[in-house]
Amino acid sequence: MGLDLQNERNLTMLTDFYELTMSNGYLESGMDDKIGVFDMFFRKIPDGGGYAIFAGLEQLVEYMNNLRFTQEDVDYLRGKHIFSEAFLDYLLHFRFTCDVWAAKEGEPVFPGEPVVIVRGPVIQAQLVETMVLLTVNHQSLLATKANRVVRAAAGRPVMEFGSRRAQSYDGAILGARAAYIGGCAATACTIADRDYHIPATGTMAHSWVQMFDSEYEAFKTYAEIYPDSCTLLVDTYNVIKSGIPNAIKVFNEVVIPRGYRPAGIRIDSGDIAYLSKKARKMLDEAGLTDCKIVASNSLDEYIIRDLITQGAKVDSFGVGENLITSKSDPVFGGVYKLVAIQEGEHYIPKIKISETVEKITNPGFKQVWRFFDKDTHQAIADYVTEFGEEVDTSKPITIFDPNATWKKQTLENVYAVPVLEQVFAEGRSLYTPLSLQQLQNYCLEQVDHLWEEVKRFENPHRYYVDLSPSLWRMKRDLLEKVNTF
Amino acid sequence: MGLDLQNERNLTMLTDFYELTMSNGYLESGMDDKIGVFDMFFRKIPDGGGYAIFAGLEQLVEYMNNLRFTQEDVDYLRGKHIFSEAFLDYLLHFRFTCDVWAAKEGEPVFPGEPVVIVRGPVIQAQLVETMVLLTVNHQSLLATKANRVVRAAAGRPVMEFGSRRAQSYDGAILGARAAYIGGCAATACTIADRDYHIPATGTMAHSWVQMFDSEYEAFKTYAEIYPDSCTLLVDTYNVIKSGIPNAIKVFNEVVIPRGYRPAGIRIDSGDIAYLSKKARKMLDEAGLTDCKIVASNSLDEYIIRDLITQGAKVDSFGVGENLITSKSDPVFGGVYKLVAIQEGEHYIPKIKISETVEKITNPGFKQVWRFFDKDTHQAIADYVTEFGEEVDTSKPITIFDPNATWKKQTLENVYAVPVLEQVFAEGRSLYTPLSLQQLQNYCLEQVDHLWEEVKRFENPHRYYVDLSPSLWRMKRDLLEKVNTF
Repeated sequence: MGLDLQNERNLTMLTDFYELTMSNGYLESGMDDKIGVFDMFFRKIPDGGGYAIFAGLEQLVEYMNNLRFTQEDVDYLRGKHIFSEAFLDYLLHFRFTCDVWAAKEGEPVFPGEPVVIVRGPVIQAQLVETMVLLTVNHQSLLATKANRVVRAAAGRPVMEFGSRRAQSYDGAILGARAAYIGGCAATACTIADRDYHIPATGTMAHSWVQMFDSEYEAFKTYAEIYPDSCTLLVDTYNVIKSGIPNAIKVFNEVVIPRGYRPAGIRIDSGDIAYLSKKARKMLDEAGLTDCKIVASNSLDEYIIRDLITQGAKVDSFGVGENLITSKSDPVFGGVYKLVAIQEGEHYIPKIKISETVEKITNPGFKQVWRFFDKDTHQAIADYVTEFGEEVDTSKPITIFDPNATWKKQTLENVYAVPVLEQVFAEGRSLYTPLSLQQLQNYCLEQVDHLWEEVKRFENPHRYYVDLSPSLWRMKRDLLEKVNTF
Repeated sequence: MGLDLQNERNLTMLTDFYELTMSNGYLESGMDDKIGVFDMFFRKIPDGGGYAIFAGLEQLVEYMNNLRFTQEDVDYLRGKHIFSEAFLDYLLHFRFTCDVWAAKEGEPVFPGEPVVIVRGPVIQAQLVETMVLLTVNHQSLLATKANRVVRAAAGRPVMEFGSRRAQSYDGAILGARAAYIGGCAATACTIADRDYHIPATGTMAHSWVQMFDSEYEAFKTYAEIYPDSCTLLVDTYNVIKSGIPNAIKVFNEVVIPRGYRPAGIRIDSGDIAYLSKKARKMLDEAGLTDCKIVASNSLDEYIIRDLITQGAKVDSFGVGENLITSKSDPVFGGVYKLVAIQEGEHYIPKIKISETVEKITNPGFKQVWRFFDKDTHQAIADYVTEFGEEVDTSKPITIFDPNATWKKQTLENVYAVPVLEQVFAEGRSLYTPLSLQQLQNYCLEQVDHLWEEVKRFENPHRYYVDLSPSLWRMKRDLLEKVNTF
C-alpha cells in the first residue's frame, strides 16, 4: 500500500512554524491538556463543480502513525531560542493520542461540512494542522479533477500522463494515486505502479522516431521488439501523409505475420477530431478495425467532451498537465478550524466570525449524515448534526437551508448513512487499508448516486448541506453573543 | 544543503514508463551506445511575463548522482514481461555516464533556448527525461512566480506561507526553496528551514485566539511567553474595534514593561488597504510607530501592487496558495527534445517538425551566450550558437530574429557570457553547491541587469533570443529537407 515511501521519510517537521510556537504556548500556559475539536472543511468546489472527491486519507493515517520528533529535530528547534526546555522534552517523547474521524477516500463531499475531525489535546491537534490540510487538499483536488475528466470521456479509458509537469515528486506520485481514485485507468508514472499498483503504461516519444533515419525504420524496429503491444506515435512528421501509412505498413509487415494484432496508434498534436476520423478511416480500410486510437495533446474535460461531441474517433485519452496540476483551478481550499473545547463532560462550541457570511464556521463537535432515497438510492442531502445526536429516519424529517431558513424540505422514505468514520482512537489507528481499485470502485459507485444536475460541469445544482435544528440554534446563539461590537 | 531528503529516497523509478520501453528498445536494437544530445527548453513564460527564473538544479544533480536501480526495481520490471534480461541486467549495473550542462539557479532564462543539455548514450539520456523536466519545471515555476511577487512588494519582505495548499509534500518543501531563490525572505514551512536553512517564521493562528475566553487574554498569554518577538493576529473578531485596541493594551502592559518593543500585528482578512491605514494610525497614536504591520489574505503580485498604489501601510506580506501553486498559471511547460546524434566526430542535427512554427525545435548541440553592455551591464540579447562556436565581441556582431530575418541589430561595446555551465562530465558531478542565500543574491542581481521593459507584468518587451548564422542555416536546411510532403 505504498507504506515504504512514507516510512523512509519522517514528515513530522512538515508543519507551519506557528503550529510550534502555539503548541509551545499551550504548554507554557498550562493548556496543553485542554481537549479541542478541530474541523477540516472547504468552502468552494474546484472548477465550480457540484461535488468534490475526498482523497489522501491513507497518507494522512501513515503520517499520524509515524509522528515523532528526532533528537536532531529537537536540537534544531532549541537553536531558535524561543522554545522552553519543557516543550522540547515534550516533543522528544511525543506520542499522538488524538481521536480522528474522516470521510472515506473516494467519497463525494460538499462545502461547509467537516471532512476530517481531530479531537485531542490542543497541543497535538494544533501540530497536525498543516499535514491534514496539505495531504487532503492535494489528493482531493486531483481526485476531483480526475473524476471530471473521466466523466467527460464517457467510458473511454483516461490515462494520467502528467509527471513531468507535476508540482514536484509527490505531486506526480500521489497525484497519480488520487487520479486513480477519481477514475483514471492508468498512469505514465512508473514509481506509482511500483508503490501503489497503478497500471503504468507508455510506448514511445518523438525522440524514438527521430533517433532513426526514417519513421518507417523507427516503427519497424519498435514493432519487432514489442509485436504484442505495439502502439505507434504517428505525429512526428505528418500524421496523414506519413505516420499512419508507415504504421499500417509496419503492422502488416511485422505485427500481423507474427500472430499479433496491432495495439494502437497515438496522436499527440494537431486537430484531434479531424485527424482521428481520418486515421480511423485509413486503419479500417486497411482491415485494422481493432487498432485503437489514443489521443494526448493538452486535453482536459472540456476538450474531451468537445472531441466526443464532434465525433472524434478516439478510444482512450492521455491527459497530462491539465490533470496533474488541476491547471484550471489548482488549489483545494480546505481549512482547519477550532470548533469546540471540551470542559468536563461538555463541549464549549467555538466560532470564527467573518464579514463574509460563507466564511463563518459551523461550531460544535459534529457528525455528517447523508440521506439516500430508499427506492432509488439517490443521495438527497447531507445533514450536519451534533456528535451523538440521533437521526431518526423512521419519521419524516424536515431540513432547511441554514442561511435561508424558510427554504424547507420534508424527507420521507430515506435512510441516513454517517459520512465520517473514526480512523484513530486515542492515537491508535482503526484504519483498514483498501486497495486503490476498491477506492476507485467506491468513488464511481457513490458518484452514480448523485443527481445528474449535481454532476453538471457548469452551474451544477447546489447539493444541500443542512444543519440540524440544535446545531443551527447553537450557531445563531454564538453569533449573537459574539457580535456585540 | 538538503541532501538528506533526497538520499533517503531513491527516485530513479520516477520516470515515465515509455522511457523504459524506449531504453529497452535502444538496447535491443543495438543503439544503446549511440550518443544523443537532448535539450530541455520552454516555449512560454508563466503569467505572460518577460523572463523566467531557472531553479531546481541542485535537486537534479542529487538525482543524477543517486541514479541506481535496486534488485526490487528490476524484479518489479521483470514482472511486466516486456523487458529483455539483457536490459534488466543493464539496469542492475546502471552507471550514469552522461555530460550535462545547465543554467545557474536564479538565472533569468527565456523561451526557445536550452536551459539543460544532456549528452550521452541515448539509453541513459532518455531515462532521465522525466526527472529533468519534473525537477526544473516545478522549481522554475515557483522561482519565477516568487520573483514577480517580490518585485511587486517593492522592497517589503515577502514570506512564503503556502504549505497547506501546496501540491503535496515536495511541492511545499522544494516550493519554499524555489520561492527563496526567487527572492522571498522567509517561509512558514519548518522542515524547509531545518533542511534548507530558509528562515521559518510564524506566530499564531485564529485558533490560538479562540482557545481563550477573550482576545485580550489570548494576546496577553502569548505576549508573556514571547515578549521579544510578539506579533499578534488581530482579525479573529474585529480588527478595528477589538483586535488593535487589545494588541496595543497588551504591548503596553506586557511587552514594553519587560524592555521589549512590539514586533507587529497581522491582518489576515478584510480590506487590507483600509484596515492597514487605520491600524497604522492607531498604533502611531499609541506611540508604537515601530510596530510592523503584516498582511496575509489571498495575496498575489497584482493585489500587492494595488495595495501599495492605494497607500496601504503594510510592512511585509505573507503569500500563500497563489504563490506555492503559482495559481494563476500553475504549469511551467519545459520540454526535452532530441537535437542531435553523434556520428564519429560529428553531430547529426535532429529536428521536431510541427504545424505551429513556435513548436519547431532548434536542432544541434548548442551553447547559449548572453550579451551585456560593457558600460551599463544591461543584458541585451541571448545568442544561441553551435557548441564550440566562437563568439567574438571585439568586433560588431549583427544578430537577427530567427523567424523574421530582416529584423537585425548590430551590437557593439558588448561582452558575452555563456549561460550554460557543465555540471556533469561522463557522469561525474562538477557541481559546486551554493547556499540558498548566494542563489537568491545571484537571482536578484541578474534580474537587475534586465531592462525595465522586460520586467513589466503585462505585455513585457520580448527579450531577444537569436540564433547564430550557422545554427540558423542548419535549421533552415533541415526544415527544407524534412518538409517534403
